[in-house]
Amino acid sequence: MMLDRASRPLDRVSDFPAIPDGWAYLDTAATAQKPQPVIDAIARAYGETYATVHRGVYARSADMTVAYEAARTRVAGFIGAAAPEEIVFVRGATEGINLVAQTWAATTLRPGDRILLSMLEHHSNIVPWQMAAERAGALIDVCPLTEDGRIDLDAAERMLTPAHKLVAFAHVSNVLGSILDARRAADLAHAVGAKLLLDGCQSVPRIAVDVTALDCDFYVFSAHKLYGPTGIGVLWARGDLLSAMPPWQGGGAMIDRVSFAGSTYAPPPARFEAGTPHIVGALGLHAAIDYVDGIGLDAIHAHEAALVAAARDRLGAINSVRLFGPADSAGIVSFAVDGVHPHDVGTILDEAKVAIRAGHHCAQPLMEALGVPATARASFGVYNSAADVDALVAGIERVTRIFG
Amino acid sequence: MMLDRASRPLDRVSDFPAIPDGWAYLDTAATAQKPQPVIDAIARAYGETYATVHRGVYARSADMTVAYEAARTRVAGFIGAAAPEEIVFVRGATEGINLVAQTWAATTLRPGDRILLSMLEHHSNIVPWQMAAERAGALIDVCPLTEDGRIDLDAAERMLTPAHKLVAFAHVSNVLGSILDARRAADLAHAVGAKLLLDGCQSVPRIAVDVTALDCDFYVFSAHKLYGPTGIGVLWARGDLLSAMPPWQGGGAMIDRVSFAGSTYAPPPARFEAGTPHIVGALGLHAAIDYVDGIGLDAIHAHEAALVAAARDRLGAINSVRLFGPADSAGIVSFAVDGVHPHDVGTILDEAKVAIRAGHHCAQPLMEALGVPATARASFGVYNSAADVDALVAGIERVTRIFG
Repeated sequence: MMLDRASRPLDRVSDFPAIPDGWAYLDTAATAQKPQPVIDAIARAYGETYATVHRGVYARSADMTVAYEAARTRVAGFIGAAAPEEIVFVRGATEGINLVAQTWAATTLRPGDRILLSMLEHHSNIVPWQMAAERAGALIDVCPLTEDGRIDLDAAERMLTPAHKLVAFAHVSNVLGSILDARRAADLAHAVGAKLLLDGCQSVPRIAVDVTALDCDFYVFSAHKLYGPTGIGVLWARGDLLSAMPPWQGGGAMIDRVSFAGSTYAPPPARFEAGTPHIVGALGLHAAIDYVDGIGLDAIHAHEAALVAAARDRLGAINSVRLFGPADSAGIVSFAVDGVHPHDVGTILDEAKVAIRAGHHCAQPLMEALGVPATARASFGVYNSAADVDALVAGIERVTRIFG
Repeated sequence: MMLDRASRPLDRVSDFPAIPDGWAYLDTAATAQKPQPVIDAIARAYGETYATVHRGVYARSADMTVAYEAARTRVAGFIGAAAPEEIVFVRGATEGINLVAQTWAATTLRPGDRILLSMLEHHSNIVPWQMAAERAGALIDVCPLTEDGRIDLDAAERMLTPAHKLVAFAHVSNVLGSILDARRAADLAHAVGAKLLLDGCQSVPRIAVDVTALDCDFYVFSAHKLYGPTGIGVLWARGDLLSAMPPWQGGGAMIDRVSFAGSTYAPPPARFEAGTPHIVGALGLHAAIDYVDGIGLDAIHAHEAALVAAARDRLGAINSVRLFGPADSAGIVSFAVDGVHPHDVGTILDEAKVAIRAGHHCAQPLMEALGVPATARASFGVYNSAADVDALVAGIERVTRIFG
């Protein structure tokens, strides 16, 4: 029944030339495969229309500038930002978080201030804050999880104090797939005067996101997890926050005037985009958003939820399998097979043409909380189907036979 | 005669699909066009072999990791680095300089220390040091230029003191094309105990570079100026320096162990590559190096030097044209036309299908030293020919007629 739901909506695998017949690619949470329109947009940008941006006086460069800024406008619309100027192109979500940590946090945090993270955060949403807290003499608190692997917002409510200046949470957990009640998290943060940063790496490809409706303050995501190119991502920040943030990296494009007597800086987003940007990356991201929007995030979410339900259903029926995370995960299933190291699970599945990830998923504190060194993780995308769930389950059954 | 030399060696324009017949692309110093093998490598990486690196247990990901690290090894060999571990992939030269400024300089500079820059530096080799100096209470000195637009190393020798901890110079000027005697600059810096950082953006695509022979300490360049993709570049640093540098951006891949009690960091280069890297950018850069190496940098330099000589010869014969920089420039010619703003020069040339850059070239202090608000700049690449010089000269003659 679940399988029927899963097989219903999307049949997109033929859009993805790097997925051969019979290969179950279940590592989309690490990076998504690319649809042909994205690859075409990139090849066209390099092979037909290539030029630099913002500087050329010739028509080709002016056209490329228009295309680059159109990508910014497309991103703003896609996530509900108030204005394109609130969109900063960065290398990826990790750089976006570091940018906030080294500019906003570096000029905001005072000794004794506190930051609230959660136990399920990705290292990229832990380490930058540890570094920022250490510099400022600030402290980090860790919000626990509910029994089924969600950030426990009741606990967050009890923990938050006026000393908290920032709450930084994953919108969707990269290990458990659990979806944060982001609007409530924003309300809780704002009630004590803190800002809310959301790590949107796993949410933007899986659920509809509207930063204005969520009322968050910072939002980051990576293009390569959204079926787009590597080397580019997005930091969104509320315009008033972004305008007040000092520059981070110095160089061309981010300045107003440079002299050896002193330099002045451009307004955002240019202030935060020093140097020639990843021009073609922005165009590829634009194409990826067009692709995803063409399917619709509600359809994508329903598709992935059905695959998750089917996978949890059937894996859960295998005695030696332990499932992590909530039943209504957004496209991600973490699990363990009793007595088998997740790396061995991954290796045996690879032989069966099923690609999953096994490891700590850059979330070592969560692994500790789960009491495991690592998990096996299957994560779904628009190209997956019920046949991939079949292959996964058959592979795990093989694992249990080999190690049984 | 010069034209004969220029037309002799390279006939590569057919490798570049984005250069239509009859278009003289003379803005390679801003960004280089891409040869088909680079575009193919990128399309293949996204369309056939795509996977994440360093994390997957499945074969596709292991293969991509090998390819990503092979790119690092290729870069190391290309610039004469002692080991691949000395190569850090960054977004571009700008980020490379900021990384050194915010890690090495931030932990090295003391109040009263000095940094020596030159009057011809790109903003990306000025602003990061201004920011670092301000934080540390250090001071910046500015090395003047010779009459013909080279960094005056005799002056540098007189200026350097034991208070200087860093010398940061362009290996080739992005405005004037002047080539630094980098080995002498290294000797001068080391004589007072300073380190030498070279901005190699314009040198790596134009002259053979061997960081070991040059005896410099840091070297940066951008792939997109080397006929490679956008969004990736290289920081090379001597292994002992790199190992001693603290992390800059926190996140996945750069850590050894993360816990909320404290995190420890990986050795270089991973320490400086937080987050999923620009995987396909690295593969594209690899292909670009293969392409450039296949021609040979000595052949490229001879080709561009001949084009420069021809252009300077013929532009210099026009009464109203003023040439900047030395005669033996590496592929770059800056000039002004009396009484005509460089932007107007650029616009009229664009109508004649000649793409040059007009502006301050992210080198406002140099513009001030030259006594102009901007220059027109023609810069050459492997795809240019004597016909492009003809088109440039014809265009400038038209400019002088229109404004004459």
